[in-house]
Amino acid sequence: MNKEHETAYERLKDRLASISDLSSANALLFWDRQTYMPEGGVAGRAEQMATLSRLAHEMFTDAETGRLLGSSGDPDPSSEKGALLRRVRRDHKRAIRLPAELVAEITRTTTLAEPAWVKAREESDWALFAPHLEKIVRLQREATEHLGYDDHPYDALLDGYEPGARKAQLETMFEELKGDMVPLVRAVAGRAKEEDRAALLHGTFTEAEQEEFGKVVINAFGYDWERGRQDRSVHPFCINFGPGDVRITTRFDKGWLAPALFGTMHETGHALYEQGINQGYARTPLGGGTSMGVHESQSRLWENLVGRSRPFWSHYYPKLQDTFPEALSGIDLEAFYRAINVLEPSSIRVEADEVTYNLHILLRFELEVALIEDELPILDLPAAWNAKMKEYLGITPESDAEGVLQDVHWSNGLFGYFPTYTIGNVLSVQFFDEAIKQRPEIPAEMKEGKFSTLHTWLRENIYRHGSRYDPDELIERVTGRSLVTAPYLRYLKNKFDELYDLD
Amino acid sequence: MNKEHETAYERLKDRLASISDLSSANALLFWDRQTYMPEGGVAGRAEQMATLSRLAHEMFTDAETGRLLGSSGDPDPSSEKGALLRRVRRDHKRAIRLPAELVAEITRTTTLAEPAWVKAREESDWALFAPHLEKIVRLQREATEHLGYDDHPYDALLDGYEPGARKAQLETMFEELKGDMVPLVRAVAGRAKEEDRAALLHGTFTEAEQEEFGKVVINAFGYDWERGRQDRSVHPFCINFGPGDVRITTRFDKGWLAPALFGTMHETGHALYEQGINQGYARTPLGGGTSMGVHESQSRLWENLVGRSRPFWSHYYPKLQDTFPEALSGIDLEAFYRAINVLEPSSIRVEADEVTYNLHILLRFELEVALIEDELPILDLPAAWNAKMKEYLGITPESDAEGVLQDVHWSNGLFGYFPTYTIGNVLSVQFFDEAIKQRPEIPAEMKEGKFSTLHTWLRENIYRHGSRYDPDELIERVTGRSLVTAPYLRYLKNKFDELYDLD
Repeated sequence: MNKEHETAYERLKDRLASISDLSSANALLFWDRQTYMPEGGVAGRAEQMATLSRLAHEMFTDAETGRLLGSSGDPDPSSEKGALLRRVRRDHKRAIRLPAELVAEITRTTTLAEPAWVKAREESDWALFAPHLEKIVRLQREATEHLGYDDHPYDALLDGYEPGARKAQLETMFEELKGDMVPLVRAVAGRAKEEDRAALLHGTFTEAEQEEFGKVVINAFGYDWERGRQDRSVHPFCINFGPGDVRITTRFDKGWLAPALFGTMHETGHALYEQGINQGYARTPLGGGTSMGVHESQSRLWENLVGRSRPFWSHYYPKLQDTFPEALSGIDLEAFYRAINVLEPSSIRVEADEVTYNLHILLRFELEVALIEDELPILDLPAAWNAKMKEYLGITPESDAEGVLQDVHWSNGLFGYFPTYTIGNVLSVQFFDEAIKQRPEIPAEMKEGKFSTLHTWLRENIYRHGSRYDPDELIERVTGRSLVTAPYLRYLKNKFDELYDLD
Repeated sequence: MNKEHETAYERLKDRLASISDLSSANALLFWDRQTYMPEGGVAGRAEQMATLSRLAHEMFTDAETGRLLGSSGDPDPSSEKGALLRRVRRDHKRAIRLPAELVAEITRTTTLAEPAWVKAREESDWALFAPHLEKIVRLQREATEHLGYDDHPYDALLDGYEPGARKAQLETMFEELKGDMVPLVRAVAGRAKEEDRAALLHGTFTEAEQEEFGKVVINAFGYDWERGRQDRSVHPFCINFGPGDVRITTRFDKGWLAPALFGTMHETGHALYEQGINQGYARTPLGGGTSMGVHESQSRLWENLVGRSRPFWSHYYPKLQDTFPEALSGIDLEAFYRAINVLEPSSIRVEADEVTYNLHILLRFELEVALIEDELPILDLPAAWNAKMKEYLGITPESDAEGVLQDVHWSNGLFGYFPTYTIGNVLSVQFFDEAIKQRPEIPAEMKEGKFSTLHTWLRENIYRHGSRYDPDELIERVTGRSLVTAPYLRYLKNKFDELYDLD
């Protein structure tokens, strides 16, 4: 870098640091709203969050940022500077391609759409939400034309969550998954026994003891409490305000262990990623996870590949029984393991098991593509939803509230986001297999309640890099190949064949 | 207002609303740091707060704000628009008079000075802090020259906390107070008996029950929990993010009732003021208390004139005894009342009684004036401090840690702030007397644990106006005259003459 480039780059970094500070402050406004804010704060908080978003957006898209980006030169793309500039230039291009008018119109529309969706779901009345969604889809289509794409408008949306991902690749991925999963689901249909669910569904589990047990587990995972904390919220999430403050939230249900138990592990997976990022990347665009899909791979890895595994529970189940002797003393490890791994189609995505979860996502992906292609009239969407539910899962939702109206995402204009959940599932196994290949002692350690080899491997290979590598580069770097479904399908087949005696 | 003025005024208000949002976000960053932030968040939080302060300051002092202020016309000064413009023009003038260089230098200096002060106090070593204070005082003097003043440079500093207040007025006020108080303190010296403190000092008071009792009390005061909440912090404070979210924090001491009990009432006094402001003033410069002194008058009114009074405790003491039967059953109302009103000189301001508190402030005021006049070398400050302690309170601090190093204020560059504490004390009685004059039923209601007449009167006459009136206008409007010490001195004389049989 010559002197002029150097100066521009440093000024750009200062500017990006201020933008990062605004985003962190906005994240705290969000965290507080979900955890502690009194009801009276709603209106003021909405104004505060809108102002901080607007200022950050203005600062990022104004002429000065463009000028500094243009004057920062072209350092070696494999260097940190090169990686930072590449990411910022891409984000900047996206940001300035969208006209301010359109951004404002999307904000206005989704601000009205979310409460309309809440009401529509409450009353299970599609007509209340349909006109809002109609407008949202129209604006999303408009956005794709401004953003630009090579093959398909859906790619332009996807790119905002999973840089480099393409609709065509996802179709291949889902085709492979569907080929194995639909038959698996059919084979298992009706085999899950009532008593399989009993262990988790019944009993009283005091909140304080659930919390304590969860803490013991995530301590063992390696969650750093000096750089984090745990609070309660209705919808659990992980959020951070820099690498030194990465928080999780949890929802507790006194009659049911699953939400807090697996929710805590899931959010901790996200948190370990953020806590593990090179601290030198703080306040830069490299200081966060590289994509939604890679992030989700880490929450799923800790939740499912660790938290729903035999090795994990062979160590922790006796401790869980000690914590809840009344509810669990009559349930042995095997019954418990079966209970937390029941495979059974249901209408609701967020309650789905490891297998059917992806079919819920597939359905949404296909419908989103059809909407963006303008091939599916909004009024036909509920019927299309139910038809796909029947086809993939063999069930029909009892109402639109339990069907097409169940998720908040579309009301917020999040098109192209759902597929990252399945990308995360697939990647979780691809990464986990690689970890075990390189460090074969991991499963034995898990049996002893130890996770430091796994955690260290993930930190060294994935976490510390933050957004330095794009998702496809990172996957290649870590596993020697791009995203593949085979390891994931093999994992599911082994696990559920054994659980349901399918062979 | 003509059309052009109208347009400029509306744009100015939008701009001020954004600045207010930045300040509210920064206030939340502060609240979180004092209550829940994990240790690892310190560095990132400092950056976030610095960035938000800087952006708010830049937006307030840039050319566009100046232009809009100049184009907004001169509406009737008694109208809300007139009041808003007057306040903003004054604040703007102050803000642009300080060169950015000087502001940055003050920030840098105080950022280093506070940890130096912490260390100096820990080791009771004046020499560690003296060079920092030397520089701070020099910068404060420099600031007064930029800010400008008519009579005395100290006025320029004072004006930042108490608009319109002048050093000469404060001297008169303190002269009047000193004339009565120093003799009173001497007359009482040594009369406070050991057992007078016993009721509060000894015993075990569980935190949960202290909290519950405090909640019952501030519920009765009228604190609105839908627009607020209570958390724990080492240094209690009241903070708000708009009128819909006004929070307090409390410190609990298991062996001593006073900090939580009176601290909660004190912070609630501040909170009732903020919760009571006309909600239409939200996100404008009228939407906060009009000055530090008037704010403090409300915290003191609820803490002292209500919370340390006989009528209040004749209702609440039986309930307090029920809450802590073991510690309090042997202590009657009279003994308790004496215990919470012990008059006794001590070294530490924050632990001082109602009378000697003001002498602590007087001492600081006189020393600040001498420093700003450059009449007192920093190295002589500890000796000057101790000499005044001897003269006003008859005691000598055991160390500089308990003397000149006890307060954080100077290390933060807060010169001109201390006097507002005594202004608050004096005003609390002037307002309270007026309330009782207009609504004579107030004391009888207090005996029944009812405060709605008092609260309503304060809201109607003081709270709802926010910053619409300057402090001197407000005092005149409410009490028919400017600040006077006579009611306050009469209150203290009556209370302590009776307590110590001085007549």
